[in-house]
Amino acid sequence: MTREPDDLQRIFEFIIELDKLKAIVRRTKPTVLERYENSAEHSWQVCLLAVLLAQHSRQPVDVTRVVEILLVHDIPEIDAGDRIVYEAPSDARTATERQAASRIFGILPEPQANWCMSRWEEYEARESSEAVFAYAMDRLMPVLHNLESHGQSWRENNVSLEKVLSVNAVIGEVLPAVWERVQVLIAKSGAGDRT
Amino acid sequence: MTREPDDLQRIFEFIIELDKLKAIVRRTKPTVLERYENSAEHSWQVCLLAVLLAQHSRQPVDVTRVVEILLVHDIPEIDAGDRIVYEAPSDARTATERQAASRIFGILPEPQANWCMSRWEEYEARESSEAVFAYAMDRLMPVLHNLESHGQSWRENNVSLEKVLSVNAVIGEVLPAVWERVQVLIAKSGAGDRT
Repeated sequence: MTREPDDLQRIFEFIIELDKLKAIVRRTKPTVLERYENSAEHSWQVCLLAVLLAQHSRQPVDVTRVVEILLVHDIPEIDAGDRIVYEAPSDARTATERQAASRIFGILPEPQANWCMSRWEEYEARESSEAVFAYAMDRLMPVLHNLESHGQSWRENNVSLEKVLSVNAVIGEVLPAVWERVQVLIAKSGAGDRT
Repeated sequence: MTREPDDLQRIFEFIIELDKLKAIVRRTKPTVLERYENSAEHSWQVCLLAVLLAQHSRQPVDVTRVVEILLVHDIPEIDAGDRIVYEAPSDARTATERQAASRIFGILPEPQANWCMSRWEEYEARESSEAVFAYAMDRLMPVLHNLESHGQSWRENNVSLEKVLSVNAVIGEVLPAVWERVQVLIAKSGAGDRT
């Protein structure tokens, strides 16, 4: 009687806290819009990309687990902000993200907090096939956007084609045919050209 | 050799088409923002709501299936636009949504097109426990937003408290404890008061 309402209240509070991810702005623009995309709508799109490309994975992956990971993977950005993948990682950034995950997932009742934290930690560790596949999807999505926008976020952030190819090479480890195709498209589209 | 690239190209085209859902504006505002939310970021949030509340379902549900349904449930809005639940449904609207689903899912290779269409049709039919639970989540999310915003979308669209309670009663059928709690919160918050 007393526990049920408390747990519910914490779930409601967490869900409303998630609204803040709609205000976290990424570096890429949705193809049809002038504005930058936010991390909430990105999270939805990358889940669908994972579902649609799972069959192209070199190793079999549990798609359910991949989607669970992708639903929570950006939530700590609510406190830590978005970081472009081409920036060097730092210990300070990692600590900030971990604190953010603890605070935000900690709003939830313990079983759900643990559920979220375990999926986020799995993503961060990049050890399971599912985490690596999820990471490859998170890398591929902005590449697909850049193919459509003549390299908008690469140009704006001064990212060289060489860096694009090296940082995103993980896509090739996970989905060789997809990465091969994407490299052809980058060359064809001129998205990697500096203007 | 010839089929693989074609299928990939169709998946890429579909994923970029999904950008358009980020431009479909709903009636509710995220708690922290002045703007209205869009259907893409809503789709992400409602997936997490489903994961977190599945244990409160009166009937056991396959959460994976619920999430799959919710990932695709709003995609036809790309052509058909968002419809507030308090508007009466019409045959014309249903036909428009069905056409939209055919066009948009039809961008995909056949197996993936069928995957999306079957989940969207399951949602529309509201027959399986998973579809009904997904629908209840889609109803609950804007109620939670209205609790935070003193009934912002209800006031702006002139929706009476009576209508709020009757249209959302499906939440009570699926999650009795949640709906009971929400009704108390509506009364306490004054979110259903007309100003």
